[in-house]
Amino acid sequence: MNYQELPTPALTIDLDVLERNLDRMADYCRQHGIGLRPHTKTHKTPEVARMQVQRGAVGLTVAKVGEAEVMAAAGLDEILIAFPIWGNEKLRRIAALARERNILLSLDNEATAQGLSRAAGAAGATVGVLAEFDVGMRRCGVEPGPAALELARKVEKMPGLKFRGLMLYPGNIWGTEENREKIVKDVAERVGKALEPFRKAGMEVEIVSGGSTPSALLTHKIPGVTEIRPGTYVYNDLNTFYQGACRLEDCAARVVATVVSTAVPGRAMIDAGSKTLSSDGLGSGPATGHGMVVEASDAPLIKLNEEHGHIDITRSSHKFYVGEVVTVIPNHVCTCVNMHDEVFLVRKGQVEGSWKVAARGKVR
Amino acid sequence: MNYQELPTPALTIDLDVLERNLDRMADYCRQHGIGLRPHTKTHKTPEVARMQVQRGAVGLTVAKVGEAEVMAAAGLDEILIAFPIWGNEKLRRIAALARERNILLSLDNEATAQGLSRAAGAAGATVGVLAEFDVGMRRCGVEPGPAALELARKVEKMPGLKFRGLMLYPGNIWGTEENREKIVKDVAERVGKALEPFRKAGMEVEIVSGGSTPSALLTHKIPGVTEIRPGTYVYNDLNTFYQGACRLEDCAARVVATVVSTAVPGRAMIDAGSKTLSSDGLGSGPATGHGMVVEASDAPLIKLNEEHGHIDITRSSHKFYVGEVVTVIPNHVCTCVNMHDEVFLVRKGQVEGSWKVAARGKVR
Repeated sequence: MNYQELPTPALTIDLDVLERNLDRMADYCRQHGIGLRPHTKTHKTPEVARMQVQRGAVGLTVAKVGEAEVMAAAGLDEILIAFPIWGNEKLRRIAALARERNILLSLDNEATAQGLSRAAGAAGATVGVLAEFDVGMRRCGVEPGPAALELARKVEKMPGLKFRGLMLYPGNIWGTEENREKIVKDVAERVGKALEPFRKAGMEVEIVSGGSTPSALLTHKIPGVTEIRPGTYVYNDLNTFYQGACRLEDCAARVVATVVSTAVPGRAMIDAGSKTLSSDGLGSGPATGHGMVVEASDAPLIKLNEEHGHIDITRSSHKFYVGEVVTVIPNHVCTCVNMHDEVFLVRKGQVEGSWKVAARGKVR
Repeated sequence: MNYQELPTPALTIDLDVLERNLDRMADYCRQHGIGLRPHTKTHKTPEVARMQVQRGAVGLTVAKVGEAEVMAAAGLDEILIAFPIWGNEKLRRIAALARERNILLSLDNEATAQGLSRAAGAAGATVGVLAEFDVGMRRCGVEPGPAALELARKVEKMPGLKFRGLMLYPGNIWGTEENREKIVKDVAERVGKALEPFRKAGMEVEIVSGGSTPSALLTHKIPGVTEIRPGTYVYNDLNTFYQGACRLEDCAARVVATVVSTAVPGRAMIDAGSKTLSSDGLGSGPATGHGMVVEASDAPLIKLNEEHGHIDITRSSHKFYVGEVVTVIPNHVCTCVNMHDEVFLVRKGQVEGSWKVAARGKVR
C-alpha cells in the first residue's frame, strides 16, 4: 500500500531516513569515543530502542518510570531515568526494576536521594545515581562547583545507591552556528567547574552525561563529557531543521492528512489539529506556524484547533482540493509522537507495517 | 486515599463540580427548550457521556469515527460526527455504525456527501447529514445563503443519506460580555440568512446545531438554533474562566503534581510538562502561562518542557519545597485530558476511583 492510501491522519516514519539518522549519530559517537545513551522520549518505541542498541548505544534514557518499565519489559537494559523522580509508589517501581536491570536516576538534592535509598534498600536493589548540575537551562541541577561533590559524597553513604557520575542538560546550545559555538564554550567551562572538585578530591566520576540533538555533534568540544542523550535525532522535526541541526530530508516523521474542506475562501482545512500534531510552537526559523505542508511550503499551517488544521492558501500556487492527501512535517516530533498509539512504517513510499508507541502516555 | 497521595502527575476530576456543571447546562437547555448534544471531545469517557444522557441530552457529538465507535460500543446512540470525514476506510466504519445506531455527519461539500452515500449504500445503512455553514470562524462551512439549501437538495437525492438539518460552530463568540453580545447578534443574522432559503422553499430543517461552551448560555438569543454542542463545560479550564464563562471553583479537572527540584534559584520544577498539561496557550485573560498553580497563584507556570513545568517563584510568598504536592488548573482541558489514559475521581478531597479515557488518542 502506498502511504497516500493510509486512513488519515496517520503518523508515518520513513525507515531509510530513520536508519540514516541512527547511523550518523552512532558514527559520530564512535569516532569521538563518546557514549550514546539516546533519550527514548522521542520514539517511545522498543523497536527503535533496539536499533539504537544494535548500533552501539551504551544504554537508554527515559524521563518516566513507566517508560523505563516498557523498555525493561522489552529486554532493554542500562536505563537512565533522567528526571528527579519523587514519590514512594514510583520509587518502589524503580527499585523493583533495579533488581533485574541496571537503572540510574538523576537528581539534584539530598531528599530525593534519601527517598530512592529507602526504596532501593527495602527491595534489596542498587540504583545508580547521577548528580545533575545546571549549565544554563535554569531547570534542574546544582550550581557547578562544590555542590555536586557534596551531593555525591552524601549519595555514596546511602544504602542501595551507587554514585556513578554527573549529568547536565545543554538544551541551551542551539541557534546559529556562531551562537552555538559561543554557548558550547560556556557549557565547557561549567563542566570544568563541576568536575574540578572531584579531581581535587580524587573521586572517580565514571559518567558525565550530556547531549541533546542540537548540541550532539559539538560534544567533542566539551571536555569531560563521556556520553550524550539526544532524542529528537531519530526522527528530527521542523525545529531541528530551523536550528540547523538537520536537513528537511532528514525529517523521518510526517503526518499524512487529508484536505476535508475548502468551503471558506482562502482556507484549506486538513484533518490534523493539535490532537494529532501537538500545539508545540516553532522556537526557531520563522517561529510561527504549526508544521510544514510538504506539498505546498508556500501555504502556511496558520492555526490548529483540536482536530482541524487551518492552511492559509491565499498566497500559494498549489491548488488544494477536498480529498487531497498532504504530508506535514511537525514542529516538535516528540510531542507529536506522543499523540499517537501507532506509527506507520514507510520505505520508498510503501507502507511496510506499523509500530505500537508502547511508552506513549506513560505520564508516571 | 487523599488526592495528595496519588502518584503524580495525575489528572483528577472533582465529581461534585462535574455534577454541578452537568446540571447547570442541562437546566439551561431544558428551561429554553434547546436540545443538548454535548461534545465528548473534552472527556472522551463513556461514563461522563452516560451522565449527560441521564440529564436529558438528545444525543452526543464526536469529532472522530474512533470516538463514535467507543461511545456506540458503550451503548450510546444518536451520535453526531461533527467533522467532514473523508476516506473510504473511515466512511465504511461510519456506515457499519449506522446499521446499529443513529449516526449523523456534518459536511459542507458535495464530494464528501457522495463518498458517504456510497459507503452507506454499500452497507445498507442510512446516515443523517447536517450541512455546515460558517458564522465567522472561517473554518468549515458554506456561506450563509442559498449554498446550504443547494447542498441539502443534493444530499436528499443521494441513496443512504437523510438530510436532517444545519450545523454552525459559533466558536467566535467569546471575550467580554459586551463582545459576546455583539457577536451573538452577528451570528443570529447569519443563522437567519442560512434558514431563509429553506423557509422560502418550504423545506423542513429538523436540526440547527450550534453551541460551544463560551456561547452556550447565550443560545436563546440566536433564533432558529434547536440544539447546542458544548464540550468544555463538563470540566472547564483556565481559558473558560478568563472568558468569563465559569468561576475558578467550576474547574473540575486539576493536575496533581509534585515539586521535584528547587536547586535553581528563583525556580520550582514540577513533574508536569507539555506531555501532561498539553502546550495549549491561554487565549484569554493574561494570555501567558501554562496553567494556574492553585496553591500559589502568584507563582506563574512560565514554561513547559515535555516533562518539566517551570514555576517562577521570584515574586511568590509561597515557600515551595521538594516533595510538595501542588495542583494545576490547565489552560485547555480538552487537550490535557487527551494526554491521559485515566482520570482519578475525587470527592471532598478523597479519591473514589478512576475512569479510563476510553476515546483518548482516537485520531481516526
